[in-house]
Amino acid sequence: MTGNAHTTDVIIIGAGPVGLFAAFQCGMVRLSTHVVDVLEDIGGQCAALYPEKPIYDIPGFSSVTGAELISRLETQAETFKPTYHLNQRVEKLTREADGRWTVETSLNTRITAPAIIIAAGAGAFGPNRPPLDGLEGYEGRSVFYMVRKRDDFKGKRVVIAGGGDSAVDWAISLSEVARSVAVVHRRDKFRCAPSSSDLLHKLANSGRIELVTPYQLHGLEGDGRALSGVAVATLDGQIRTLPADALLPFFGLATDLGPIAHFGLNMDAHHIVVEPTTCQTSAPGVFAIGDVAHYPHKLKLILTGFAEAAQAAHAAFAVVHPDESLHFEHSTSMSLPGK
Amino acid sequence: MTGNAHTTDVIIIGAGPVGLFAAFQCGMVRLSTHVVDVLEDIGGQCAALYPEKPIYDIPGFSSVTGAELISRLETQAETFKPTYHLNQRVEKLTREADGRWTVETSLNTRITAPAIIIAAGAGAFGPNRPPLDGLEGYEGRSVFYMVRKRDDFKGKRVVIAGGGDSAVDWAISLSEVARSVAVVHRRDKFRCAPSSSDLLHKLANSGRIELVTPYQLHGLEGDGRALSGVAVATLDGQIRTLPADALLPFFGLATDLGPIAHFGLNMDAHHIVVEPTTCQTSAPGVFAIGDVAHYPHKLKLILTGFAEAAQAAHAAFAVVHPDESLHFEHSTSMSLPGK
Repeated sequence: MTGNAHTTDVIIIGAGPVGLFAAFQCGMVRLSTHVVDVLEDIGGQCAALYPEKPIYDIPGFSSVTGAELISRLETQAETFKPTYHLNQRVEKLTREADGRWTVETSLNTRITAPAIIIAAGAGAFGPNRPPLDGLEGYEGRSVFYMVRKRDDFKGKRVVIAGGGDSAVDWAISLSEVARSVAVVHRRDKFRCAPSSSDLLHKLANSGRIELVTPYQLHGLEGDGRALSGVAVATLDGQIRTLPADALLPFFGLATDLGPIAHFGLNMDAHHIVVEPTTCQTSAPGVFAIGDVAHYPHKLKLILTGFAEAAQAAHAAFAVVHPDESLHFEHSTSMSLPGK
Repeated sequence: MTGNAHTTDVIIIGAGPVGLFAAFQCGMVRLSTHVVDVLEDIGGQCAALYPEKPIYDIPGFSSVTGAELISRLETQAETFKPTYHLNQRVEKLTREADGRWTVETSLNTRITAPAIIIAAGAGAFGPNRPPLDGLEGYEGRSVFYMVRKRDDFKGKRVVIAGGGDSAVDWAISLSEVARSVAVVHRRDKFRCAPSSSDLLHKLANSGRIELVTPYQLHGLEGDGRALSGVAVATLDGQIRTLPADALLPFFGLATDLGPIAHFGLNMDAHHIVVEPTTCQTSAPGVFAIGDVAHYPHKLKLILTGFAEAAQAAHAAFAVVHPDESLHFEHSTSMSLPGK
């Protein structure tokens, strides 16, 4: 839905794993929700940045991919039919005379509700782009900032730039399917798990991966859309060209909380300060959960965000229904003797 | 293991879902664990009381049975090889001269560690037993306080006693497999979800279930081990006998925190008071998580216990390694660009 006016019990800002679980938890206490996200799909970073990467610390899953986790959370939330407003950024938060809040988005959607749960993670995010001439023409065709499917690089000559876990892990992984893999890094040492570094050097020794160090990206060669090579340079200006069909720069993520940082909430650097047992922000009826929320000893874990979603949903219930007490039960207690 | 002395990084008291996930989270920060539980199997109430009952609010599971959840958590924790000491109650907690803690169990197991995480739920638990002559001889043969497998009651004449969700839900469920189902309750009205009550009365009207109200249990008939009938009485003493192969009394759960209540920790009724962001109790190095832990706005949800397990594991790390800072990353961040 776009360009309309809506009312609901709770507006959830952010459709990542924690926002989706907040929609479920609100449903568990019979609160209706509208969920807004700047991306065109639900799932946040999990779905957009590492859909195929296994996550090991979600309770009950020895391993689950970002994509599968999101799909499962979407199904779970769907029980309570949240309304999604995707591909639009929350631009404005205003308080109505009656105490409710109205959110306005970049697509002119207006939603009014007594309670808001902000689950914005690190905010809108994008890759740090290398400063190379003509880069834009190659992006999405030969230059990629993430791997959606490993098989997209089958049989290709791949140049990976960067020295962190992403660069190393994908070099190792893509070496199994690509025609060639070269890793360009300005130092000899990689910032990654020791076991990954060992494997990288083993693959380099056996010729499966070429380590191009200490070099940095210098230029792109091709027809302006399809890459044929990547020029790299040493710090003292020696230049060589690596034949390439694809360049994957892994230079980290630039994140931007955007207008949320200017809602007037108490902030601690780029985080919203909350009371840790209710996730209440400095504004009445406004809650923040997941990576965007801060309190002492905060752990930025997805599973922590899940528990915060439950806390915020319960606290939101008291805001939406100030005169009702929540008759609350475990979902499991329905079968406990004598309950 | 029994009757031995052990040392470890963290002693976890309670092998329910939250205790098991604490073992996993301790492993994630490279802390070794020994786990003690009074039951003969891991899993706590989940496994012992409602193994086949679906749970709806575990993140990522639209529905999961208690047994499946425990099995998955056991597998996840197994990565880090926790040592289990089952079928024994923690009897004593003493502080060593060096600041470490020693736990002693009813099987004379002694475990010493710098940190303890108490995940004892509501403590040891057992059914409220009806005061009937000769009851003990029938227990486990004809009298059961829980349904492990519905098919155990296939073709049997079942008498259910009680008026809560358990009595009603199992009456409905067992009416599909049992030869007959009678529900004995001292009132006409049942304390359960309206939809369950409607279904119960529908099945009663169609003759699939007999509602024996207002009656209460009066006596057991049989050879002392195998039941042939259950005598029931009205409040004014009218007695009738229901033919029965099995009696299921659902009169609620008696729980007992046992010696843990006398460890000298700050308590609030039957709960251990903790700081909500670290789960630290009033004793240094001793943490409490899950249903046994209390702080303002505490939600007694399994998923809340999971997040508390992560908090306590991180706080325990600081106790076990006071001079090291925990270089902590998301399990997922390994693949984030530039990390």
